Amino acid sequence: MTDVDLTDPGGYRHWVAETVRFSDTDMVGHVNNVAFAAYVETGRVAYGMALASEAFDAGTRLNVVLRRLELDFVAEAHYPARLRVGSRLLRLGRTSYTIGTGVFADDRCLATSVGVLVVVGPDGPMPIGGRAREVMTAALP
Amino acid sequence: MTDVDLTDPGGYRHWVAETVRFSDTDMVGHVNNVAFAAYVETGRVAYGMALASEAFDAGTRLNVVLRRLELDFVAEAHYPARLRVGSRLLRLGRTSYTIGTGVFADDRCLATSVGVLVVVGPDGPMPIGGRAREVMTAALP
Amino acid sequence: MTDVDLTDPGGYRHWVAETVRFSDTDMVGHVNNVAFAAYVETGRVAYGMALASEAFDAGTRLNVVLRRLELDFVAEAHYPARLRVGSRLLRLGRTSYTIGTGVFADDRCLATSVGVLVVVGPDGPMPIGGRAREVMTAALP
Amino acid sequence: MTDVDLTDPGGYRHWVAETVRFSDTDMVGHVNNVAFAAYVETGRVAYGMALASEAFDAGTRLNVVLRRLELDFVAEAHYPARLRVGSRLLRLGRTSYTIGTGVFADDRCLATSVGVLVVVGPDGPMPIGGRAREVMTAALP
Repeated sequence: MTDVDLTDPGGYRHWVAETVRFSDTDMVGHVNNVAFAAYVETGRVAYGMALASEAFDAGTRLNVVLRRLELDFVAEAHYPARLRVGSRLLRLGRTSYTIGTGVFADDRCLATSVGVLVVVGPDGPMPIGGRAREVMTAALP
Repeated sequence: MTDVDLTDPGGYRHWVAETVRFSDTDMVGHVNNVAFAAYVETGRVAYGMALASEAFDAGTRLNVVLRRLELDFVAEAHYPARLRVGSRLLRLGRTSYTIGTGVFADDRCLATSVGVLVVVGPDGPMPIGGRAREVMTAALP
Repeated sequence: MTDVDLTDPGGYRHWVAETVRFSDTDMVGHVNNVAFAAYVETGRVAYGMALASEAFDAGTRLNVVLRRLELDFVAEAHYPARLRVGSRLLRLGRTSYTIGTGVFADDRCLATSVGVLVVVGPDGPMPIGGRAREVMTAALP
Repeated sequence: MTDVDLTDPGGYRHWVAETVRFSDTDMVGHVNNVAFAAYVETGRVAYGMALASEAFDAGTRLNVVLRRLELDFVAEAHYPARLRVGSRLLRLGRTSYTIGTGVFADDRCLATSVGVLVVVGPDGPMPIGGRAREVMTAALP
C-alpha cells in the first residue's frame, strides 16, 4: 500500500456527502475523532454496497464484518462544514478486502482511513469468488 | 402528570448507571443535548425490558415504537462524570404508555424526560391487555 | 402554536442537508431517535446562526442554552438516505425563543421538533432587545 | 510492541466502566464500531488525565492531539451490557506517546485499540520532558 496516497482526492472511486453536525464537536472545540469514524463508515459502507450491487444478484445476503480500522488525522474540522468522503479498494485477500477512505473539505484532506473487512458465511470467513472477485479485482489500484 | 416531580430521584422505580463519554461533550464545553437523549433511552429501554420480563412469556416479541420524546434540561453536565438514570411509568393508555426518566449526578437532577411509546402489532397499534396491563397498572404512580 | 403545522415543509424559512449515517441506525433496523435529536440540532443551530448574523455585529458572543426539546416521530427513516431539515421561528419571549424544526425525506415528514432556547448573559437570562428583537419579530409566523 | 498482548486484561494500568447504550447498536443488531471508538476514547482520555495529574502542576494547560487511531475488533458486543475499558502506555517518543486500550466484558476482550497522541504547544509539537517524562517512563511496559 506504499504506493497509494490516501490524502490525494484524485484516487477515489466513490464519494458521499457528509454534514458536520453540532454534536460531532467536542469540548476541545473541533470535530471529535469519533465523528470521523462515523464519516468513514458512511463512505465505506456506501462503496461496499455499490460494489455488491455489481457483484451479486439482488437480494443476496452477505455478512461483512469490520475486522480492523485505522484512522489518521491530518487536519482539524470545525462546525459548520460540508465534507465529502471518498472510498477506494486497496487490497483483495482470500476472504477479506481492504477499503481506503478519505475525508475532505473540498480538496483538503482532513483524515484518511483503512478498513479491513471480512466476508462471513454460516461457517465463518467465506472465500470471495466468482463475479465478486472479478468486480473487486477490476476496482483495485 | 402535574403531581409527579421528575426532578425528585425518590420517585423512580428503576435505575441504570451511565458514564459521560468525552465524545458526549460539544464545542460549548459541556455535555451536548443529544447525549442526554441517549442517556434517557438507555434508562427507558432497560425499564421497559424489566417490565416486559414480568408481563410476557420469555421469547414474546414486541414492537414498541417511540412516538414522542420530551427533554427538559435542568443543569449542565461535564466530562468526566458518572451519572444515573431513573425511570418510572407515568401513564397507561389503551395502546400506549408514558415513561418518565431523570438523569442525575448523585441526587442532583440534570435533566428529565417524558417518552410516549406505542405497542405495535402486525396491524398497527395493539391494545395492552392481560398480564401486561396488570403489571403496568401496578407500576403507575 | 396550534396554527402552525410543522409537518408541512412549506412553512420553513431555513434548510440544511443531512446524510443518514450507518451508525445512526439501531438494532431495530431503522434510524434511532437519538440521531433525530442530532439532525434537528444541526438545523436549529444553523438557523440560529443565520438569525444572529443579521441581528448582531460580527464577533458578538452570545450564550444560548437549550432549555427544552420536544420530538415527535412521524415516520421511520432508514439507511441510506439523504434528508433535509427545515427550521422556523415559532415564538419570541422576553429572554427566550422557540424554534420549530422538521426532518424530511424530500417532502415527506419523518419527525418534527420544538426547541426552547434561552439567551444567557453573565447575570443569567438576558432580555432579547434592539435589533435582535426586530430581526426575530420579522421571522415570526 | 510485539511483546504486548492488548487482549490480556492483566496488563492494563487504568480502568473505566462503560455502559452499552441502545443507540450504540446498529442495524446489524450489534454494537457499531463507532461506539467502540467512543469507548476507547473514554478510557484513553481518563488515563491521560490520571498521568497528567501526576506529571504536571494543577492548572497546567496541555494540548494533546490524537494523530492516529487503530481499532481491532475481536468479538461482537450487544445491548445491554456493562463494559470495562483498560488503558496502558505502550511507547514514549520525543513529542508523542502511544496508549493501548482494551474493551472487555468481564475478562473477555471485545476490541483493542492503539492511539498515538502528540503534545502540542504554541509552536507545534512540544518535547515531553522533565517530570512528565519521568512519570510516563515509569508507566512504560
